[in-house]
This record gives sequence, C-alpha cells and structure tokens, in this order.
Amino acid sequence: MAYKDKYPSKLLEDAVDAISTLPGVGQRSALRLALHLLKQPSENVHHFTEAINHLRDEVKYCKQCRMISDEDVCSICSDRSRDRSTVCVVQTVRDVMSIEKTGQYHGLYHVLGGIISPIAGIGPSDLTVRELTERIADPSSQIKEIILALSGDVEGETTAFYIYRQIEKFNLQVTSLARGLGFGDDLEYADELTLGRSIAGRQPFRP
Amino acid sequence: MAYKDKYPSKLLEDAVDAISTLPGVGQRSALRLALHLLKQPSENVHHFTEAINHLRDEVKYCKQCRMISDEDVCSICSDRSRDRSTVCVVQTVRDVMSIEKTGQYHGLYHVLGGIISPIAGIGPSDLTVRELTERIADPSSQIKEIILALSGDVEGETTAFYIYRQIEKFNLQVTSLARGLGFGDDLEYADELTLGRSIAGRQPFRP
Repeated sequence: MAYKDKYPSKLLEDAVDAISTLPGVGQRSALRLALHLLKQPSENVHHFTEAINHLRDEVKYCKQCRMISDEDVCSICSDRSRDRSTVCVVQTVRDVMSIEKTGQYHGLYHVLGGIISPIAGIGPSDLTVRELTERIADPSSQIKEIILALSGDVEGETTAFYIYRQIEKFNLQVTSLARGLGFGDDLEYADELTLGRSIAGRQPFRP
Repeated sequence: MAYKDKYPSKLLEDAVDAISTLPGVGQRSALRLALHLLKQPSENVHHFTEAINHLRDEVKYCKQCRMISDEDVCSICSDRSRDRSTVCVVQTVRDVMSIEKTGQYHGLYHVLGGIISPIAGIGPSDLTVRELTERIADPSSQIKEIILALSGDVEGETTAFYIYRQIEKFNLQVTSLARGLGFGDDLEYADELTLGRSIAGRQPFRP
C-alpha cells in the first residue's frame, strides 16, 4: 500500500500520536481531532496550544493548601471571610471545585494530590501529608477540625487512616463525610454496601 | 463563593475553554483533560502542543489530488505503480484513508474538501471541483474513469450530480459506489431504503 505507516503524512501521524496520549482518546478519536484542528484558522490552533502551554508552565499551587492558583496563596486561603478553624482534606483539585459548587462549606482545604495506592506505586511521601501536619503544628494555626473527605473505597480508607494516625497527636476533631443513600435515590437500586451503611448510620428523624 | 468564575485559576479556565472548543468535548471532559495535562512532565506537554502546531503550520496538500501530504505531490500521486486512468472523488482526507485501508483500490484520488450543503453555507466554489475539471482537461491527463465515492445522503447525491454535470462533457466513464446490504448484515435489521435499493440493484448470482 501507498501508506506504509497508516497515515498519509508524518506530521499528521505525530499529531495523532500526541493527541491519543490523552486519557479516553483512542487513535480514531485522535485522528478526528487532528483533522478538526487542521481545518481551523491558524490563530485558533495557536491560541489552543498556547492556553495549554501557559497552564502547564505558569500554574502555581497555593503554598498553604496546594490548590491550583494564580497567586502564591489561593483565593480561598486568602479570603478573610472563610472559617480558618476547619480544614477539609481532599484528594484532588477537582474535589475542591466540587465541594465549592455545593456552597455548603466555608472552611479551608488541603489538597493531597492523590491517594495512597500500593498498586499504582503511590505512597504517603508522594502526597502532601507532611505539609498538612506542618500546617496543623504551626503555632499560628487556628485549626480545630480536620474533615477527611476522601473516596469511600479501600484506598480512600487506607489514606484516611494513615492521615488520622499522623494527626491524632494534635487532639483535633477529625471527621469524615456522611455516607448513605443519595438524595432522591431509590432503595431498590442502591448497592448493598451503601444501603447497609445507610441503615447502620441512621439518623434521628426530623419532621 | 470564592470562585467567582467557577475556576480557581484563570490559566486553568483559559485552558478548559480552549480544550472545550474541540468537537465532542464538553466543559467537564475539558477540565479532566486540562488537569491530566497539568500532571504530565512539562516536556510531554510541550511535545503535545508542538505536534499540533507543526501539523497546522507545516502540513501541505498535494497539488494534484489535495490530499494531506508532507511533499508537494502526495505519496499516492507520485506512486508510478498506481493506475492513473481512474480517479476516485471523495469528500475528505479521512475517506482516502478508509479506502486505502481496504487494499481494493489502486487508482488515484481527488479530495473535494467537503460536500455541497446549502444549510452549512458550503457551495461548489468551496470545494475543489474546479481543480478536478482542470485535472481532467489537462492534455497530459490519462483519466478514463471518475468514481464518485460520496455519502449516500441528499447532500452527497446533490454534490455527485453537480460534479457529473461539470464533467459529462469530457466523455469519461462516471461511476458511483455500490449500495446495498453490508456483508454479514441481517435483512431483518436493514433499513427499508437500503433493503429496497439492494433488491433494485440485485446482481447475478455467482456460485
């Protein structure tokens, strides 16, 4: 065949290879995206790649909570109206965004940057646990409660337990997220574990 | 809320906006991809954006068939072993790649770059129809057959008819792709139009 390597152009092949490194993007989708970009005005494509380069090269992480930030201290940590006595520990930047969206939380955060996972080769030293203990130990700290808002799987519970052992000496209140049926969830379709925990953790009825 | 504009960082917001201009990529997927890129080594991200910039800035189109190419004349048009008497007219670069993959075609191509679509505001002058007629009219042309390999919808048929009217004066053989049930297709699940055409266009049985 005329196309020794599947693609009519080395430039196209390189772009498809690069795009298909994105999670959830296979060779077919990558080809579709590459051909789409090829049809766009040159300045649009440059704007696209520059926005990505700027993000990667210039992004900062808040020196206090490790959240993505444009400044050395993020907009939440520097917001004087937030409750400085409560710190919510989450795995990712995305979790902070999810909790902020609820509008139900007015304390500070601490982004771990991942979760302890022996299979993925991620240990405590790959996370910002040490930074968390330093934050709590800081004499100017006003922290009274740590909320462990981690995922409900084995890795999340392992990480929560590890952090608990590291911070129990500080005599803070340590809490975790309520688990149970989601609002509007049907008992019939709930998984057994969730339903079981929902019964075990039942709450006084408030009419 | 602390996040006035949904995102903790303007850099992140710009990247998400840029990524969500891709077809089939919404804001949520764009955020996921942006956060993925943020976790990659800087050189990987630069390689990613450079591959896209190179594609957009340096790609050439074959001056004969308008296929994507690294050279002025593409690898198919410059391949002396290909049948120069047959030209297969397709809508897109991708169609050429699909037909090449079959290994069943050994002639040349002509990439229209789209299809006549009044709704999308695409007329004959936006396509390479003039280039096709010039190619046929060229005294050195060896073209004897034009295959109109366009989509089977109204726009495809409109485009095929328009091209036919432009080239009928050259007295070439003009053909179109066989339509009917796909190999392995079940009659029960075929749409009526396909099944109807499949009956109307029935072929002598070759045992």
